[in-house]
Parts: sequence; structure tokens; C-alpha cells
Amino acid sequence: MSSLPFFHPIQDDLQRVEDLLQEPVPDQHPAITGAVELLLGSGGKRLRPALVFLSAHLCGADPDVALFAAAGVEMLHTATLVHDDLIDGSLMRRGAETLNARWSPAATVLTGDYLFARAAYLVACTENVRLVRRFAETLMVICNGEIRQMFDERGKVPTFQEYERRIYAKTASLIALSAESGAILAHTNEAAIAAMRTYGARLGLAFQIVDDVLDFVADEWTLGKPVGSDLRQGLVTLPVMLFLEQNGDHPVLQRILTHGSSEPMVQEAVQVIVASPAIERSLQVARNYIQEAKEALQLFPSSEYKAALLDLADFIVQRQF
Amino acid sequence: MSSLPFFHPIQDDLQRVEDLLQEPVPDQHPAITGAVELLLGSGGKRLRPALVFLSAHLCGADPDVALFAAAGVEMLHTATLVHDDLIDGSLMRRGAETLNARWSPAATVLTGDYLFARAAYLVACTENVRLVRRFAETLMVICNGEIRQMFDERGKVPTFQEYERRIYAKTASLIALSAESGAILAHTNEAAIAAMRTYGARLGLAFQIVDDVLDFVADEWTLGKPVGSDLRQGLVTLPVMLFLEQNGDHPVLQRILTHGSSEPMVQEAVQVIVASPAIERSLQVARNYIQEAKEALQLFPSSEYKAALLDLADFIVQRQF
Repeated sequence: MSSLPFFHPIQDDLQRVEDLLQEPVPDQHPAITGAVELLLGSGGKRLRPALVFLSAHLCGADPDVALFAAAGVEMLHTATLVHDDLIDGSLMRRGAETLNARWSPAATVLTGDYLFARAAYLVACTENVRLVRRFAETLMVICNGEIRQMFDERGKVPTFQEYERRIYAKTASLIALSAESGAILAHTNEAAIAAMRTYGARLGLAFQIVDDVLDFVADEWTLGKPVGSDLRQGLVTLPVMLFLEQNGDHPVLQRILTHGSSEPMVQEAVQVIVASPAIERSLQVARNYIQEAKEALQLFPSSEYKAALLDLADFIVQRQF
Repeated sequence: MSSLPFFHPIQDDLQRVEDLLQEPVPDQHPAITGAVELLLGSGGKRLRPALVFLSAHLCGADPDVALFAAAGVEMLHTATLVHDDLIDGSLMRRGAETLNARWSPAATVLTGDYLFARAAYLVACTENVRLVRRFAETLMVICNGEIRQMFDERGKVPTFQEYERRIYAKTASLIALSAESGAILAHTNEAAIAAMRTYGARLGLAFQIVDDVLDFVADEWTLGKPVGSDLRQGLVTLPVMLFLEQNGDHPVLQRILTHGSSEPMVQEAVQVIVASPAIERSLQVARNYIQEAKEALQLFPSSEYKAALLDLADFIVQRQF
């Protein structure tokens, strides 16, 4: 993804993020160093650090300070993935073994905690108290959302508002923070900070909807995990919601949602949903969010960074991975 | 413990900490609210918030700001206990069921994460960047220490230096941060900050040694968990180390350390260690740390807060719980 045109203006910045993320910490246990290499070397998209830097350049923040925010959001993202994989019992992510597939749950919990602490440290290095507070608030939103999802009934069909709240907590909140970070660090006006935040939030909602669509339409190799995994876990996402709107009495779907799923049932459900208009309708919802994200940037004058943010938004709904 | 004389000068401050810790957060899931009530209502000693306030008053920090640091360290401490109990599989703490005894591991991981985030938020409310950074560093030290302990061989007898490093990471680092917090918030001179830090670190080392002794000599009711639990888990603490110095070939101890333990073996080992001079010698090591803690306060003029810190230090090695 780093070869995409909208990453060009921040290529050097992103290289500095890689270096900082991998920088060894004195006295750090070799197991943690190994885990960090494994987790951060497995080719994340670096979408969040890119947003921090594009926002920082657009709003005029010091890139040397933005560097810490960029590394901090990526580290926080990584920490949440470590605990997510443990909670879901996921053994694969991005086509590679997860930490909990190799390690004990206890070691995985502690490594995640360590990465949270390291993320907090990196963000504190910006010496910007507002950003530190926003960072902590965002982690609260993420955890609160995951706990809500966990206590939700398996197979429960959410309202659109409930779905939006869930994907905001899960994905959009941190992407909004990333986009907002550069503006906060630039000490620019509140309207610009709010605009970057809106841009990031809408981008993040679209991003998660595309993820939820890819869980149906992607092939397993590209996805790096089995297709239909949300449905298999009883998690109802937008494609299922929109499918049910028009096929509320579909027997296989109904059975999965009320009684749990067997593998052939999941495969059948994936096939009928992929063949239905629910996929295209889901993508249309994502495209609407992308439109709102782009509109939020209207108050900024033209620049290569604004152009990159607009291109990045379009890319979100075109991506295949 | 809050009725002890050294808590008198900060009685009102500590009540404000209770209120802030229990303050409901908007949109917080009821399960988290319930968990916070359970965890923070089960009668912790509030040693860490007390240190923050005594240090703040001694050094002249604003108590309204210190309040956030005090609540933050207690919240961080609680978060680490939640994950510790999960990792150890502990079902009881302070005589009450632990969170993981009632909940799934997944919910327990997420609740701990949420409490980390809330702790970071509270500390960020001090608007003191140095404190936020020290806070993150301390969490890194704690997690790093736990990971080191986890990868250590079961039944390994540490050198004294290794033991000290372990209990520093586990307990003394956060107590040192608590004592240092008030001085940092007061923007006082570096010598005073370093002195408060030394006081807290030595106090914390003594505190953990007394904990390790109580795991042998306390009764189960007072302890709120079974006696000998460290040994049962293959964790070698100071009483065992000092016992082995003089009884290196004791057959039951050797067998526990090399082959693991049966319950009658643990009971026998506890009995021989309790009857040996290893207990008194361990307490002497703790008393030496307390002496160093008190000496670190010499540079401060006399005040009721200094007197309370000196009394608190003495109490640490006299406590029975």
C-alpha cells in the first residue's frame, strides 16, 4: 500500500515511523522485542500513521512531533489487535500466525498491555496534553465498544444506528483520532480540528464497512483469514442486515442467527449474500461516508496533502484487501 | 487502613479520590460500571493515592490536580490486578471473588484494558506531560517484569539482584511513581523529585518483601487467599531464598523446586520455612529498605506530611495484612 500515489508526499515520514516502531527499548525482554518485530513487521497498511502525517502537513504541525503521534497510533492499533485475536481465538491475521497461536494467553495479554504502555509513552513524547487525553478517550471508546459487542446476544440483528455505533468504536474512533492528531499538534483553529476529525470518522466508518464486505467477497488468500468469519462468530454486519431487509425469512440465515452455524450453512449463507444486491448496497453506504469525508475537507485550501487525503478516501472504497 | 494516624491529614483528599474513582462515565457499559464498583469497592488499602497526596502536600502541589494523579495510579493498579488475576488463574483476592472467577477471560481482558485507558485519561487530566510520560514508562516496567517472570523457569532460585529487580517491577515501580507524582506536580527542584522517588522505591521494595513474608506467616482469612501460593506456583521469594542459603539440600524444598509440588509438600515447606530464621531475616531486609526510605526524606523540612510519610514507612514493616 505504501507504493500508492497518496503516500508519496509522506514516504520519508513513514520510513521514520517504521524505524521508531522497531527501535529497541533498553531492558526490554527479548520475547517482547521478538513479538514487536513479528507484529509490526507483518506488513500493516500504515493507514493511521499516514493520516497523522497528511493531517500534520496540511495543518502545519512539526513533522518531528507528528512522528511520535504516528508511531503511537500504530502501536495502539497493534495492541488492540493482539488482545482482539486472543479474545476471538484467531490464529491467523494478514496471512500470518497471530501471537496467541504461538504463545500462551497469559503472555499475549501481557504483550498487549506492554504495547498499550509503549503507545501511551510515544504519544506523551509529543508533549501535547490534549492529544494524550484524546488518545486515552479513544482507547476507552474502543474497549467499551468491544465489551458491548461481547455482551450482545450472538446472532442479534442490530439497527443501523447500533451497527454504526459498533463500527465507530471498533475502527472509526482511532482513524478519526489519527486524522485529528495533525490538526491538534498544529494548534490550528477548532473548525479545522473538527473538520479533520469528521474526515477521519467518516473514512473509518467506510473502511470498516468495506472490511465487512470483504469478509464475504474476498478470497481467503487475499484476506489472510477464512471468508465468512463474522457470520461464523454470530456477528451480524451490514451485508447481512441489508440482505435480511429483503429476505427476512431466508431459512439458512434464520437458522444461523437463532441456532448457531455449521460450516456448510455458513458457506451457503455467504454464497446467497454475495449473489444478492446487499453487497452493492453496503458499498453504496460506504461511498456515502466517503463523500461526507471529502466534503469535510472543503475548508482547507488546495495542496498536495489535501489532494492525497481526497485520493486516499476514494481508495478506501476501491481496495480489494 | 484509612483510620491509621498517617492518613488523617489527607482524609478529605482520599474521600474525593473514592468519589472520582466511582464517578460514572457517560455511555459506559453497565458491565464495566459493575466491575469498577466491585473492584474498587472491595477495600483496597489506597496506599498509592495516599502517597500521591502526602507527596503533593509536602512539596506544595495543587491538591485539585493531585486528585487526578491519585485516582490515576489507583486505577492503573486496579487494571494490573485484573490482568494478574486472569494470568494467575486466581479466583480470590482480598477475600472476594476476582473478576475472572465471575466472567469470561475475554471480558476480563477487555475490562482491564478499559481501566488502563481510564487510568491514562485521569493522569492526562493533570495536564502534566512529564507525569504522563512517567506513568507510561512505569506500565512498561511492570509488564516487562511480568513477562520476564513468566519466561523464567518455574522453581528457579533468583539471585538477590534478580529478586530485587522483579519486585521493583512488580510493586515498587508504581509506589515510586505515586510518591514522585506530588513532587512532579509541584514543579519543585530535581533533588526533591529524586528524593520522593527514592522514598517510594524503597518503601515499595519493603512492601513487597512483607507481602512475600505474609504469604508464609499470615492466616488464610486475613490474607484473603491460601497461604504458600507463591511456592505452589513455583515462584521463589526472599524467605525461600534465605532458607535455601542455610538449608540448600532440604529434600522437600528441592523436590518442589525441581519437580513441582503436591499440596502436602507445600504445607510442609511452609512449616519449615516459618519455623526457620529466614522469616526474620527477610523482615530485616525490608526494615533496611524502610530505613533508606526514611533517610531520603531528610532534605525536607518538618511538617505533618513528612511525619505522616515517616510513620507510613514504619507501618509497612509492622502490618499484618
